[in-house]
Amino acid sequence: MIGQHPINRRKFLLTTGGTAAGAAAVGLMPARALAQAKPLPAYADWKKPDAMIVHTAQTLETTRAGMGSPAITPADILYVRNNLPAPSADITADPDAWEIAFEGVGEPGTMSLGDLKTYGVESIACVLQCSGNGRAFFDHETSGTQWSVGAAGNVFWTGVPLRRVVAAMGGPSASARFLTGTGGETLPEGLDPTTIIVERSVPTSALDVALIAFELNGEPLPVAHGGPARLVVPGYYGVNNVKYIKKIAFTEEESPAKIQQSGYRMRPVGESGAPGQPSMYEMSVKSWVTAPLMDVSSGRVVIQGVAMGGVSAVSGVDVSLDGGGSWKAAEFTGPDLGAYAWRPFELVTDLSVGTHVVASRATNAAGDSQPENFPPNHRGYGNNGWKAHAIELTVS
Amino acid sequence: MIGQHPINRRKFLLTTGGTAAGAAAVGLMPARALAQAKPLPAYADWKKPDAMIVHTAQTLETTRAGMGSPAITPADILYVRNNLPAPSADITADPDAWEIAFEGVGEPGTMSLGDLKTYGVESIACVLQCSGNGRAFFDHETSGTQWSVGAAGNVFWTGVPLRRVVAAMGGPSASARFLTGTGGETLPEGLDPTTIIVERSVPTSALDVALIAFELNGEPLPVAHGGPARLVVPGYYGVNNVKYIKKIAFTEEESPAKIQQSGYRMRPVGESGAPGQPSMYEMSVKSWVTAPLMDVSSGRVVIQGVAMGGVSAVSGVDVSLDGGGSWKAAEFTGPDLGAYAWRPFELVTDLSVGTHVVASRATNAAGDSQPENFPPNHRGYGNNGWKAHAIELTVS
Repeated sequence: MIGQHPINRRKFLLTTGGTAAGAAAVGLMPARALAQAKPLPAYADWKKPDAMIVHTAQTLETTRAGMGSPAITPADILYVRNNLPAPSADITADPDAWEIAFEGVGEPGTMSLGDLKTYGVESIACVLQCSGNGRAFFDHETSGTQWSVGAAGNVFWTGVPLRRVVAAMGGPSASARFLTGTGGETLPEGLDPTTIIVERSVPTSALDVALIAFELNGEPLPVAHGGPARLVVPGYYGVNNVKYIKKIAFTEEESPAKIQQSGYRMRPVGESGAPGQPSMYEMSVKSWVTAPLMDVSSGRVVIQGVAMGGVSAVSGVDVSLDGGGSWKAAEFTGPDLGAYAWRPFELVTDLSVGTHVVASRATNAAGDSQPENFPPNHRGYGNNGWKAHAIELTVS
Repeated sequence: MIGQHPINRRKFLLTTGGTAAGAAAVGLMPARALAQAKPLPAYADWKKPDAMIVHTAQTLETTRAGMGSPAITPADILYVRNNLPAPSADITADPDAWEIAFEGVGEPGTMSLGDLKTYGVESIACVLQCSGNGRAFFDHETSGTQWSVGAAGNVFWTGVPLRRVVAAMGGPSASARFLTGTGGETLPEGLDPTTIIVERSVPTSALDVALIAFELNGEPLPVAHGGPARLVVPGYYGVNNVKYIKKIAFTEEESPAKIQQSGYRMRPVGESGAPGQPSMYEMSVKSWVTAPLMDVSSGRVVIQGVAMGGVSAVSGVDVSLDGGGSWKAAEFTGPDLGAYAWRPFELVTDLSVGTHVVASRATNAAGDSQPENFPPNHRGYGNNGWKAHAIELTVS
């Protein structure tokens, strides 16, 4: 017996943390979403294999079951998405010697991370999430990694507040409209660099909150997550948090790189990416259930999940046990870690024998709530529709 | 040139994260404080060796340099103090099958951790700290591990709120004055169990905040920290957070165990421990500097450390660069994680060539501040004197 908003069985399997191979074996997972049971790539071989889905060597997703509902996501289950092959781990051998160039400021120049640290540090908890998280839940065909919920985590970054450094350098140039970060990956030869370089421009307002991060959850930033230093823009989708940050420039125009000009643009299905379309900057309010995902016994059941507010603190979560027919207020079960962090939630309830479609719907301090459905879009970005993130629970 | 409150050079060496062997080599560390460069014990071989001082197989301290000033202490550098040898890691193989007996409630009985989890969970950030942290800084001789600052960390516990379970069991018996937790270690034969068993009684008011914790920083609780399940009493010294928790009883009297009757009692130097003396329950306001510890160059320097409020949230930290002659307000550099957590702090300053005695002094919301000196006591418990925790910095 399925509730009034039946969910697609394929989507359910995608989300439960069952292996992709297992889902494929029962014939319910389409080829485009099939993640082979590949080994962890060497640069991320310290991740917990049971909690990770290896889509490709550059796209590692946390399983929905393995994610759980932690206040802070342990690094060893945090997803990885690299736009270029990860540099050698050698670059993290002497973090303080890593140099970053600053342009478009009163006094341009290059500083080592060791020198940057003399401006002081901040630690902040934020959700890190790929623009394409939830892509697998759209009904239309999309290219790109078929992430379900696991291209997201909630972590502590520790770094140097960029505003302090830039102030010491005389501030951004008067004409600057963008803060442009450039990654330090070695580019393959023979290709036009603008087609492959990781260089993202965000509005200069990001200067208020951006960090040059060198620690993840209190430990030196590993190369898999951008070490020795990464630009972190709290509240912004992952791609804007440039790894191996080598240059920070205040620019009048957006980067000419493809990843900026046509990549990560929200547009209707069938349209090409282009400047002028919304760029994937600020994240939105979102939540999902992480337990239970498998069949449970009837009686008292604890529904658990995580909820984020985007750039405004998450203020509440409702849970539905009947596919959205009715809703009950869930409780937060972990501390408020600030506007950019997620919070674990739970609803202790009784479930009778049968099939229940369990959904969650978060609201933030700005008053935004998750929509029932997020509009289809060409690349499958930004999915925060509560219906697509629901799970089907069999109670016996 | 030393400030007006010169500090003992021996103490300085104890605190800087230099190896014990190094300090011994220069003849400044007394034999009683000499921690041999022992290997990590098997049950804790996943700790970072460079950040740990192995006093004994059951007492592992975080170095002051290795501790840093994280918002949350990574598990792999968290100190360990076991009162009995750690059980086999086998006991964490199936956490949900672990059973805990409940006595002194309306309906006594035994429940598995899996069943307990159906009452829901909470995550809370708290300082975990040994009663003897800071013992090495007393001038008088004390028995016990010569901890400097590293028998402390700030972690996330996730567990079942004990109050929910006890309410479902009909609440504590009317005559109960203590919440008594018993550890599940196998006791060596041939000894009177009361002399060795880990069984601690705390006031029943602890029921409001106590957790049956099964996760540390979002990951299954390892045996080194009490897995599969540990009683956590936020704000209370480590010994009250009974590992391998097997029994929780509401009792009229305190446990007859030696660890309760005479152990962990605050008393004057030379006196034996006995009931009636204050037991090591609630922690107090405290802070210490963690960087820089070694010689630095003159110019802009960032003084960093951590500060905790005990059972009342830390509200401010002052830093002195002249051994307490004058003080400046430091800034918190990480989020407020609640009343029981610590917060990292920093003071960005300029230091001239010479020797500077750097001290920190925290205040909590209840208005308590660290004293200049904490009174000597027989076992060297509870040291939160700011003077003894100061460091001597040579600036060149």
